[in-house]
Amino acid sequence: MTTVQRIHNFSAGPAVLPLSVLEEIQRDLLALPGAGMSILEISHRSKTFEAILAQAEADIRSLAGIPANYKVLFLQGGASLQFSMVPMNLLTPGATADYIDGGSWADKAVKEAKKIGNVNVAASTKSENYSRIPTQAELKLTPGAAYVHMTSNNTIEGTEYTDLPAVGDVPLVSDTSSDMFSHPIDVSRHALIYSGAQKNMGPAGVTVVIVREDMLARSLEKKSTLPTMLNYAVHAENGSMYNTPPAFAVYAVGLVMKWLLAQGGLPAIAKVNERKAAKLYAEIDRTGFYRGTARKDCRSLMNLTFRLATEDLEKQFIKESTAAGLDGLKGHRSVGGMRASIYNAFPEAGVDALVAFMREFERTHG
Amino acid sequence: MTTVQRIHNFSAGPAVLPLSVLEEIQRDLLALPGAGMSILEISHRSKTFEAILAQAEADIRSLAGIPANYKVLFLQGGASLQFSMVPMNLLTPGATADYIDGGSWADKAVKEAKKIGNVNVAASTKSENYSRIPTQAELKLTPGAAYVHMTSNNTIEGTEYTDLPAVGDVPLVSDTSSDMFSHPIDVSRHALIYSGAQKNMGPAGVTVVIVREDMLARSLEKKSTLPTMLNYAVHAENGSMYNTPPAFAVYAVGLVMKWLLAQGGLPAIAKVNERKAAKLYAEIDRTGFYRGTARKDCRSLMNLTFRLATEDLEKQFIKESTAAGLDGLKGHRSVGGMRASIYNAFPEAGVDALVAFMREFERTHG
Repeated sequence: MTTVQRIHNFSAGPAVLPLSVLEEIQRDLLALPGAGMSILEISHRSKTFEAILAQAEADIRSLAGIPANYKVLFLQGGASLQFSMVPMNLLTPGATADYIDGGSWADKAVKEAKKIGNVNVAASTKSENYSRIPTQAELKLTPGAAYVHMTSNNTIEGTEYTDLPAVGDVPLVSDTSSDMFSHPIDVSRHALIYSGAQKNMGPAGVTVVIVREDMLARSLEKKSTLPTMLNYAVHAENGSMYNTPPAFAVYAVGLVMKWLLAQGGLPAIAKVNERKAAKLYAEIDRTGFYRGTARKDCRSLMNLTFRLATEDLEKQFIKESTAAGLDGLKGHRSVGGMRASIYNAFPEAGVDALVAFMREFERTHG
Repeated sequence: MTTVQRIHNFSAGPAVLPLSVLEEIQRDLLALPGAGMSILEISHRSKTFEAILAQAEADIRSLAGIPANYKVLFLQGGASLQFSMVPMNLLTPGATADYIDGGSWADKAVKEAKKIGNVNVAASTKSENYSRIPTQAELKLTPGAAYVHMTSNNTIEGTEYTDLPAVGDVPLVSDTSSDMFSHPIDVSRHALIYSGAQKNMGPAGVTVVIVREDMLARSLEKKSTLPTMLNYAVHAENGSMYNTPPAFAVYAVGLVMKWLLAQGGLPAIAKVNERKAAKLYAEIDRTGFYRGTARKDCRSLMNLTFRLATEDLEKQFIKESTAAGLDGLKGHRSVGGMRASIYNAFPEAGVDALVAFMREFERTHG
């Protein structure tokens, strides 16, 4: 094996994966142990793949303590397809869905839901550039709403929920794509959780949906009109094998889940994530040379957004940091500035390297 | 590198991939050359990935001689999601779509289309267990239909079109999932072609759609109601990057396309496929011990279906062939018997091994 040069990848997703997971994938790429063929070639109806999918589900259940009355689904299309599937399945005729608009992706979810049925935007911080999460007091919830939709972490703006909103008996639906399994999650307070894998769970190409069984009755009622591939109940009945699943991505997610369990599970990884983010925010706040864009009580531990005094200086920062092997620090094109995405698998040494770079950049450009 | 034991994989899909492609994926799994990170980790907005996707598209265009007025899209959800996307996009209000029902998957396509709009089954061989392709004379086409839908190869029943049906000026839509790029294809006679990758093109997790640009006007007209992720025009406008694409699967498809070009392209691979299938059909027909289930003039070169005198003997055949390292020969659960799927990447040596096994099985059980 030749030596492989790897750099620090601050990308917002697809994002860095644990090196040990990549090494296991590489080792078994030509043939899974005992199977005589690659994970890229194996029938999804084979016992080997069935066991891989079952183990990935079991490890997800174990990691998050998922109650027995929830199904775990492996779907395709990313969170963007969930923006439509959620209302197509859960927005009952005549009812209203409440959406908490705390970021650009939440706003996209609202737009897709409006194509399907009645939507009430319960609160929005759009006019404040989504620099904070809407507060509980601001929420104008609809009595008897079909569900309340929230986004647990706003990848673009760098904000994150710390406490779930109180929504009474209304089913809570959460897009957790960018902070899934970065900390413990109380699944029982949700009716449905969805997450594109490509940030904390694995490569792009699979979406994990955790859905409370009573929600599936809504899907079944729409069975005659809802496209089969967009029906949660069909995927649940078929154990995510109604059609060919994205087998490789499911396998890779399974390996990441095993890695997470080996780290000590969600409480342990949360501690690491808190420490990594604290180091970086401390540097952002140290002198005022850098300026965090999210309100302090809403700061994300996954996506840390900050700016410099001028756009020219920001361009220089991106140029020099990239040259220094710190890749992907440019903020989303819709907001500018810088963004350091430091998901579960992002090594603490990379955070230390960025902090050192920031100090040196301030010394030379301050 | 330890020696890897690989067996002959006759699976209908996911299916065998070229060993040289698997070896390249393995070699670069920890870091793409010059990128410093894995294809599983790289941002889809990076120049490296943009080049990978652009090259995959260029190679597909080159292989199939795709005219400039067609878009090539990389989507998710498999052919099963296309069963819904096709009518959602192309079935104009009030119009009728004609479906040629030549197999189990065509039948599924019909069922999904009926949820969306008016469907006319132009011909069906269901009552003959789909043992043949409907003939041109049987087609009851609707004047001014929105489109005609066909399935070029029936994976389960082992039949395949040799000549495209004549449909006049009506747009022809073809599900080519199981014989895509196994022979030259006249793209210009189609309005839309879709193919799940996991048979001839790559691993599961990406669907290639080739769509004539004039069809996109229909999608645009439905923009306000059609879910964005299900709108062909949106994916076309965004170069398959409206949201995060299944980056790894696109990369792998690209490598398979390069392999196909190196084999001499579609005319060359078609010759190999004809030779492989001829060998196996000759053995099936040799004495009458085996019985092919598809009508001879409709036989598939990809999925070869055959039976034995009794189900007990078939069970024995599956048991012994599996033990002999010939895997995945059991027919689809809906039809029974045996099925040998011998896609592009299936080695001729594997066909020879199966033929030898069949002779020996006949000798010992005949």
